[in-house]
Amino acid sequence: MGSVPDAVYAKYYAQLELVRRRKPLIHHIVNYVAMNDCANVTLSLGASPVMTHHPDELEDIVSSSSAVYVNLGTPDQERLHSMLVAVRLAERYGVPVVLDMVGVGATRFRRAMADKILSGARVGVVKGNGGEVLGLLGGVGGVRGVDSAVKVEPRVAGEASEKYGCVVAVTGVADYVASRGRLCRIKGGSDMFTRITGAGDMAGSVIASFLAVNTDPFDACIGGLATFKAAGALSAAKCGGPGSFRAQLLDELFNFRVDGYTHVKISFEEV
Amino acid sequence: MGSVPDAVYAKYYAQLELVRRRKPLIHHIVNYVAMNDCANVTLSLGASPVMTHHPDELEDIVSSSSAVYVNLGTPDQERLHSMLVAVRLAERYGVPVVLDMVGVGATRFRRAMADKILSGARVGVVKGNGGEVLGLLGGVGGVRGVDSAVKVEPRVAGEASEKYGCVVAVTGVADYVASRGRLCRIKGGSDMFTRITGAGDMAGSVIASFLAVNTDPFDACIGGLATFKAAGALSAAKCGGPGSFRAQLLDELFNFRVDGYTHVKISFEEV
Amino acid sequence: MGSVPDAVYAKYYAQLELVRRRKPLIHHIVNYVAMNDCANVTLSLGASPVMTHHPDELEDIVSSSSAVYVNLGTPDQERLHSMLVAVRLAERYGVPVVLDMVGVGATRFRRAMADKILSGARVGVVKGNGGEVLGLLGGVGGVRGVDSAVKVEPRVAGEASEKYGCVVAVTGVADYVASRGRLCRIKGGSDMFTRITGAGDMAGSVIASFLAVNTDPFDACIGGLATFKAAGALSAAKCGGPGSFRAQLLDELFNFRVDGYTHVKISFEEV
Repeated sequence: MGSVPDAVYAKYYAQLELVRRRKPLIHHIVNYVAMNDCANVTLSLGASPVMTHHPDELEDIVSSSSAVYVNLGTPDQERLHSMLVAVRLAERYGVPVVLDMVGVGATRFRRAMADKILSGARVGVVKGNGGEVLGLLGGVGGVRGVDSAVKVEPRVAGEASEKYGCVVAVTGVADYVASRGRLCRIKGGSDMFTRITGAGDMAGSVIASFLAVNTDPFDACIGGLATFKAAGALSAAKCGGPGSFRAQLLDELFNFRVDGYTHVKISFEEV
Repeated sequence: MGSVPDAVYAKYYAQLELVRRRKPLIHHIVNYVAMNDCANVTLSLGASPVMTHHPDELEDIVSSSSAVYVNLGTPDQERLHSMLVAVRLAERYGVPVVLDMVGVGATRFRRAMADKILSGARVGVVKGNGGEVLGLLGGVGGVRGVDSAVKVEPRVAGEASEKYGCVVAVTGVADYVASRGRLCRIKGGSDMFTRITGAGDMAGSVIASFLAVNTDPFDACIGGLATFKAAGALSAAKCGGPGSFRAQLLDELFNFRVDGYTHVKISFEEV
Repeated sequence: MGSVPDAVYAKYYAQLELVRRRKPLIHHIVNYVAMNDCANVTLSLGASPVMTHHPDELEDIVSSSSAVYVNLGTPDQERLHSMLVAVRLAERYGVPVVLDMVGVGATRFRRAMADKILSGARVGVVKGNGGEVLGLLGGVGGVRGVDSAVKVEPRVAGEASEKYGCVVAVTGVADYVASRGRLCRIKGGSDMFTRITGAGDMAGSVIASFLAVNTDPFDACIGGLATFKAAGALSAAKCGGPGSFRAQLLDELFNFRVDGYTHVKISFEEV
């Protein structure tokens, strides 16, 4: 893959600056474990999170949001219904959607949820780890609980992107973003992401925040993931373990400057 | 407004000392995002949080609590029902109630919830940001998600206090507390409160904790908000961003001493 | 009670090393307040948490887990049902279960929940503070909210162990673990545990993680509680209050080495 010149990082940083300036409202329907982390990461970035899943207020919220982030963790029937409603409302109001495949592949129930949502409305970005996106594609054996046990395959990102006609972000040691024959790899970050809960969920909030200020979802995914990975690398360098890493991560996102991107390596290829 | 002599701060500190000594039980029905933060802030202060919303155990819990804190965030039908039950039980057992208007004004559903609870039982303190309390009064356009986009108007605090016959606390860059023609303004705190989730919710827990040891709700609100704002100022001075601010805030509340009040400015006027 | 030689600590450390190496999947059905803390403590230890309570996916999750941790906090009918299902599935698949008595004794509803679960399937470890386990045994007056106000009685651990035929862990200033006439006391830890929410819940996650790699539940409980208490003591020595204590606690668990056990004192007696 060919790596990218500095100008590219300036482009992603300009997106972050837009987030900070516009403070877009990001509607979340996310799992109970990561709700607080997702809200905090969104605020650290400069955007404004709102979390609700009551069907009676979804239209008021979705219609005034700049992005909707739906996440399949800790599911129940009521929230599955709300996710379907929210995603359809988002389509009607032209609000971009990020759908996070948490645990898909680990249980048949989640796989069915994902299918239902994906067939119900247009989704801008599908996100998951390697095992989850593999599970979405019908593959088996790669998932263990909600963590991915398979080697992340850039192939999986491309296949899912083709199948669902949207941008697909597959996170892992390296993140891959695929869209219409384009593939981007983002290296960097930190092992420490695997030692805190909610890392993947927070990445979804970051992608949604970038998507709120950028009409190109491929570009927004890359900008969001690169920023998050870089902030993770900065945080890992200063922390003493997962507890201080979590706190430092929010500080790093809040204080992020363009030179932070030296901690990640972005490269592209045509496939 | 006329500012206050040092003796006033000693009075608020005496309340905090009472909280620390009595460790009052504070029953919370709060949103899923801020539950953990509210519990931690209550414990840092020296009080004892309990969180449940199952109707079958509300009477056992409310009747043994010293204050009840009800918060409209992340609502659903079941919890709305529990809030109504809890507030009525609190009235029957003489337990003071703080009602937090999270998101009222942002959706019609929340406005209806607030009305239902306020018409169902006596509430000691109504709390919200400017847009939320404006929304409660029927105003529109001031709310964006759950954050207030209108300039906080002390007028709103006074009007709501008159309309609902209770103490009203309107939080923002400056906090205002209104009751029966009295108005108090608390200045200080930190911008950092706007960069973490749950700041308003935690303020509700602090007010409820002060209310548990003080029969004058106007005074309890001021004491609680002044303490929280001062701890925020102390924390902001030491933190490197929102992540370290959150941790430091709990430390500052835990270690709070009377001289911490030099970081806020309290003033009163008759209206 | 006779204290133990250094070789005992080496044995507990060997368990922790097994957790780190095997990364066992720990299924949690825990309260909303402590979910995030439980997930993070499990990850800091080296194990892998998964949280779900939807009945349709419980079999997929329980059957692939190495331990199940069920916790009675913030109960509702739906989750009570899920707990019953999960505990029965765990019995069928031979997965050990930790049942945490959060708030039992404080409300009749929780007591009934605990009875229902305990009569529905085999539980490996029952855990609670003194008031909670007293409440389980039918005692009254010892519980205040979800915190224990009674002096922790080693007798309570022994009685509950005999009555339910399982290992019982009673946490407090000193922890007691009872099983079949054996009693172990673990001293150490820190008062700071009482100033953060979720300390007892996190202890349950730690016990479950040790149980996942050790077929002797008595030994697993002691190892887990000793490790958690020791990490608490290490954290308390470095923190400035409850906020920094929480973050440091995860760091200490992550970095824990065998000499950490010098901060606890384990002793045994036959009863």
